[in-house]
Amino acid sequence: MPPNQSNIQLRTASHADLPEIVAMLADDPLGSQRERDADLTAYRAAFAAIEQDSNNHLIVASTNDQVVGVLQVTLIPNLTYQGAWRAQIEGVRVHPNARNKGIGKRLLAAAVDLARERKCGLVQLTTDKARAEALKFYQDFGFIASHQGMKLHLQ
Amino acid sequence: MPPNQSNIQLRTASHADLPEIVAMLADDPLGSQRERDADLTAYRAAFAAIEQDSNNHLIVASTNDQVVGVLQVTLIPNLTYQGAWRAQIEGVRVHPNARNKGIGKRLLAAAVDLARERKCGLVQLTTDKARAEALKFYQDFGFIASHQGMKLHLQ
Repeated sequence: MPPNQSNIQLRTASHADLPEIVAMLADDPLGSQRERDADLTAYRAAFAAIEQDSNNHLIVASTNDQVVGVLQVTLIPNLTYQGAWRAQIEGVRVHPNARNKGIGKRLLAAAVDLARERKCGLVQLTTDKARAEALKFYQDFGFIASHQGMKLHLQ
Repeated sequence: MPPNQSNIQLRTASHADLPEIVAMLADDPLGSQRERDADLTAYRAAFAAIEQDSNNHLIVASTNDQVVGVLQVTLIPNLTYQGAWRAQIEGVRVHPNARNKGIGKRLLAAAVDLARERKCGLVQLTTDKARAEALKFYQDFGFIASHQGMKLHLQ
């Protein structure tokens, strides 16, 4: 059955989802340069760290037999904004066969629900300037591109 | 004694530093619109959450008797980049009387040291597009403005 709005469930990722999640991360113009889905050892360690931390949540969208979307939410206590917590979204991916069905929007909405539940004042993310469609997607959802997102890779 | 490079120490923030830290957050063109340093209750709760979490660190620069700089580092496990951890920097401030003495650079270097110690592959931050000097400061340090930093405020 092809994925559509009605047969897709959002839930916390389980360890068994990891191969499909990593395949999605790698099947991406930028991800293909930096992911290696042949060996999951490092991903398994990261997954365990996420799973054990109540401030980190990995949410997947799935049909009965396939993971079709993923994102990570990190809850961060901050002093700024009068000591408000923030929810940060990272690693948003929707499977190429499941696009334009509102799955990304449902994943974002689930992240915002979690943020509200955890009393966050702000939801934030960064998106690579090379991803023009992603920028529009986040703006349509209500995000404002008010900041520069800066990265420093360590060797 | 006015602050200079030699009499400034970097250390983990203590609860007693909080009034001076919040005063710095509020004494800022953007911070003045969103911080309230008359009542520290909410800041104290956030400070306690940061202090209790081994993935959150508040670093201050201080002379013998004054806090002159602050930043927060959050260590985040991620699946992307082959399961690499990231260090995220937030809430960087240097006291107006202590600028142009390299304190901001020392704070960033301390954050990078912590990131390396915790085996992070990436250090990241966002800076408001209204802060032109901050952008240059981070670029001079080596950060690349490769991403849009997007925010969604919750009511």
